[in-house]
Amino acid sequence: MPEDPDDHGCVIALDVGGTGMKGALLDRGLDPLVTLRRPTPRTAGPGAVVDEIAATLAVLAGRAAARGLTVHRAGVVVPGVVAEDLRTAVHSANLGWRDLPLAALLEARTRLPVTLGHDVRAGGAAECLLGAARGARNVLFVAIGTGIAAAVVCDGRPVRADGHAGELGHVVVEPGGARCACGGRGCLETVASASAVATAFAARSGREGTDAADVAALVARSDRDALAVWDRAADALATALATATTLLAPELIVLGGGLAEAGDLLLGPVRARLADRLTFQRRPGLVRAELGDRAGCLGAGLAAWHDVDSTTAPDPRTTGTGARDR
Amino acid sequence: MPEDPDDHGCVIALDVGGTGMKGALLDRGLDPLVTLRRPTPRTAGPGAVVDEIAATLAVLAGRAAARGLTVHRAGVVVPGVVAEDLRTAVHSANLGWRDLPLAALLEARTRLPVTLGHDVRAGGAAECLLGAARGARNVLFVAIGTGIAAAVVCDGRPVRADGHAGELGHVVVEPGGARCACGGRGCLETVASASAVATAFAARSGREGTDAADVAALVARSDRDALAVWDRAADALATALATATTLLAPELIVLGGGLAEAGDLLLGPVRARLADRLTFQRRPGLVRAELGDRAGCLGAGLAAWHDVDSTTAPDPRTTGTGARDR
Repeated sequence: MPEDPDDHGCVIALDVGGTGMKGALLDRGLDPLVTLRRPTPRTAGPGAVVDEIAATLAVLAGRAAARGLTVHRAGVVVPGVVAEDLRTAVHSANLGWRDLPLAALLEARTRLPVTLGHDVRAGGAAECLLGAARGARNVLFVAIGTGIAAAVVCDGRPVRADGHAGELGHVVVEPGGARCACGGRGCLETVASASAVATAFAARSGREGTDAADVAALVARSDRDALAVWDRAADALATALATATTLLAPELIVLGGGLAEAGDLLLGPVRARLADRLTFQRRPGLVRAELGDRAGCLGAGLAAWHDVDSTTAPDPRTTGTGARDR
Repeated sequence: MPEDPDDHGCVIALDVGGTGMKGALLDRGLDPLVTLRRPTPRTAGPGAVVDEIAATLAVLAGRAAARGLTVHRAGVVVPGVVAEDLRTAVHSANLGWRDLPLAALLEARTRLPVTLGHDVRAGGAAECLLGAARGARNVLFVAIGTGIAAAVVCDGRPVRADGHAGELGHVVVEPGGARCACGGRGCLETVASASAVATAFAARSGREGTDAADVAALVARSDRDALAVWDRAADALATALATATTLLAPELIVLGGGLAEAGDLLLGPVRARLADRLTFQRRPGLVRAELGDRAGCLGAGLAAWHDVDSTTAPDPRTTGTGARDR
């Protein structure tokens, strides 16, 4: 991204998750000038969450003002179904809203122009520009946390389908399997999300209070219960990724989110089983995400800068070859 | 498409299938001025097929000349994996070629500019412009014949992934099921293609020489063997379409190809079972294709006209408001 030496401006970037928000002031090179984390008051209801988003944007705007930085725009990304073009948060089971014109609401509260995005698609866009998928034109970015969702990039463009595309976590991998929060049975999320791994381990071993990272550590020590649970999760991931590869033909699959922190402990078995399942399909690389939990926030900043560039009318005083010399 | 009254030109459109070719001269409104069908000499090898495509283009060019029509371009669509941008037929198991620069080969033989396309994506584009999916921006067009393939349109644009996307026929619907020609097991094609339906019926009933249309007719008469085979095919289709809906979120699924000729006999049960499998997903409509076996040829013409329009430099004598008056 070319940097304008005269531009001391920034954008506000905010990644709103089910438990916490990650905010930042990002310069044109997406370098963070200020960062901030705050809890998401999810249990207080969607109204309280919107209030807290607006308050967090105001705090970040204040930090910018204190440093003499101009805020050009705010980029806010949220989970669930998001229709970027309509600037609407269509649905989030986690945050409890439905058909919320969130960009307009936040603009009215903060007097800042706001770009609304989807957390996983934003994270995928950041990985494509700055992270593990630099240079790839066909990418599947999979975020494995409490839930599982994917961002699809095909022929160099995001595949959105009005915000409904990429629900990899609800591809059925065990027909007739465990009940999913979505109402279905045997969805990938019921087997391979970080929470499913933790729950399955507790149920199998009787050892409570163990999270997915603990299970991964036990896998590394060849704990039998942990290995069985991990094996089933890797198998389910490979099944869903094989199906996604058949339909979407990514060159590169990027695994992010909490469970991918396990690195090769997860990628190794998933890679082997995915290879077993593919026949004629173009074989995708499978790598770990590089940007970690900053991906969503960087993607929010990226979307905000994109809109700054596409909505700013050229200034005749400063644009064009040698315009200032005349 | 606006019609230029001065334009007496046409394009050649050719849909090359595993058994036959469908050719036409199409005017700017995609109305056929001449049509022609010839067998594909598949068993004679890929060289013979290319020779026959070139010969068929020459015949159609001759017909155009005889009518005083200018041929602006030829559009040729073929099955398998096709990279439109690279003008290359990447792979067809049926026609036996691999990495064939087919557009360039045909241009050298015919002295006509050639646009290369994929039969099912071309058919899907035709259904989107002229057929069952007019006005829809998120569409899955599924061609069910000897094999099963899909064209994906998302956010109003084709999803190609360099020609590898949309292999719905190889989504696994019966894990560990019957061996597929692709080398996998339990692919949708092994259960729900027209040939799979015919084979399964023969195996179950002992009645040989029955094709998929005959099986459909027996279903309408409540033949027990036919019902069992049909039921399994509808179930498999619903499973694969539910997965595609979860990942791609089409508003509309259009079923084409031979098996879709059965109409509501097929669409009814597939629609009901698809509805059963979806929970939070956006629910797609499910309709039958409108253009029948002309879809591929019309799509070939559409692609050719598209390239005529995008590669023709504007003529200052005939373009612009009132240019001729000056």
